[in-house]
Amino acid sequence: MTYGSADSAPGSAGPSDGPSTAVIDLLGLLAYAELVAFFRLSDNAELAPTLVAKGELAGLAAAEYTHYKRVRDRLAELGADPEEVMAPFTEPLDAWHDRTKPQTWLESLVKAYVGDGIAGDFYREVAESADEETRALAQSVLSESGRGDFIASQVREAVERDPSLAGRLSLWARRLVGEALSQAQIVATTRVELAALLVSGAGEAEPESESGSGDLAAVSRMFAKLTDAHNARLEAMGLNG
Amino acid sequence: MTYGSADSAPGSAGPSDGPSTAVIDLLGLLAYAELVAFFRLSDNAELAPTLVAKGELAGLAAAEYTHYKRVRDRLAELGADPEEVMAPFTEPLDAWHDRTKPQTWLESLVKAYVGDGIAGDFYREVAESADEETRALAQSVLSESGRGDFIASQVREAVERDPSLAGRLSLWARRLVGEALSQAQIVATTRVELAALLVSGAGEAEPESESGSGDLAAVSRMFAKLTDAHNARLEAMGLNG
Repeated sequence: MTYGSADSAPGSAGPSDGPSTAVIDLLGLLAYAELVAFFRLSDNAELAPTLVAKGELAGLAAAEYTHYKRVRDRLAELGADPEEVMAPFTEPLDAWHDRTKPQTWLESLVKAYVGDGIAGDFYREVAESADEETRALAQSVLSESGRGDFIASQVREAVERDPSLAGRLSLWARRLVGEALSQAQIVATTRVELAALLVSGAGEAEPESESGSGDLAAVSRMFAKLTDAHNARLEAMGLNG
Repeated sequence: MTYGSADSAPGSAGPSDGPSTAVIDLLGLLAYAELVAFFRLSDNAELAPTLVAKGELAGLAAAEYTHYKRVRDRLAELGADPEEVMAPFTEPLDAWHDRTKPQTWLESLVKAYVGDGIAGDFYREVAESADEETRALAQSVLSESGRGDFIASQVREAVERDPSLAGRLSLWARRLVGEALSQAQIVATTRVELAALLVSGAGEAEPESESGSGDLAAVSRMFAKLTDAHNARLEAMGLNG
């Protein structure tokens, strides 16, 4: 199943010829990530310390649903079967959530923020690589940054009140990313085009290079970029990387 | 804390003098009912048989969040503390959900439909008794009936495919209402104005009658009305009362 030209380099599809297989994959990954984030955030309701916080958590979850719905509808518009495109990502994303169950309200906030941040990195990739309409969708999701700011400030205030929290929450954030990378490695072995798109998008454009597991420079650039983005997010929450 | 005139009969507040204590109570009940329905519907995600059904379930839950948000915002506009107004209803509503945990996908659909139906009866009461703006809110929630139709048709089709389901699901629906009534009795003892509003709204208006636990005719009219509405909902799902 190809959506762009089969011969085109991953992510190279222009507005006229529809998104590449890799971009469709990325949209499937994002759609399921948003849906499962919706359910898992709702699960954390018991951790919310007050009725106000419960309502806010519900609002965060409902926003994930809205994103899921928009990405899913876009996949259908592009002629893809949304559930088929999501299917390869259900197991690794479910596994990530199973291995990273928050035990406290603050852990659930940090997880929402880190998860949103990684999703944001993927939406940015969509915004760079997809057709115009899909790009607009990605940009509009990215523009809703107020929500993340709210979470970051909640965590920051809690850490300011009780600095002893910083160490544990930083460790938690590192575990979230570590588990995500270990799932990503599994996905990369089966979704080769997607992996190539993410690796090639990570540094200065090198469209002629053979992107694959041999392209060590590109892979290490990607990791460096991910780590930088993650550290910036930690700092926003008053944590250290 | 009274929002209308302290001397006015429950539910008699006009557009100019703001809603009565009873209507504020009812809005608090509805706000928390919607919030907790959001969380409990999301909990049922594991029961969804397909990824498509999971997405639909998320959509039903997200709609509950939207209603919660609108009722909560309206309470704030009316000068009430939304969480304070919701507080008396958290325990009975949580208890209802704890006692009625769906074990199957169809049970969760029947529960969503029955729960929505009861909420609808309460929104209708708000639409009759509240100030104009609150009334408009209630009517706009009530106008979103497509969702309920979707659930009813899913249950109906399942029962048509396997008629042996009808008995068990009818019993389940009866239990849902029975448990709701037993919680309602607890609420009625502490929220007297609210109980009086619901009883007085149940039959032909008798504004001069002393509404209270002594008004047996009004109470039995209310039960008759509730049962009729419930039976109509069962029929819509292809079940019998």
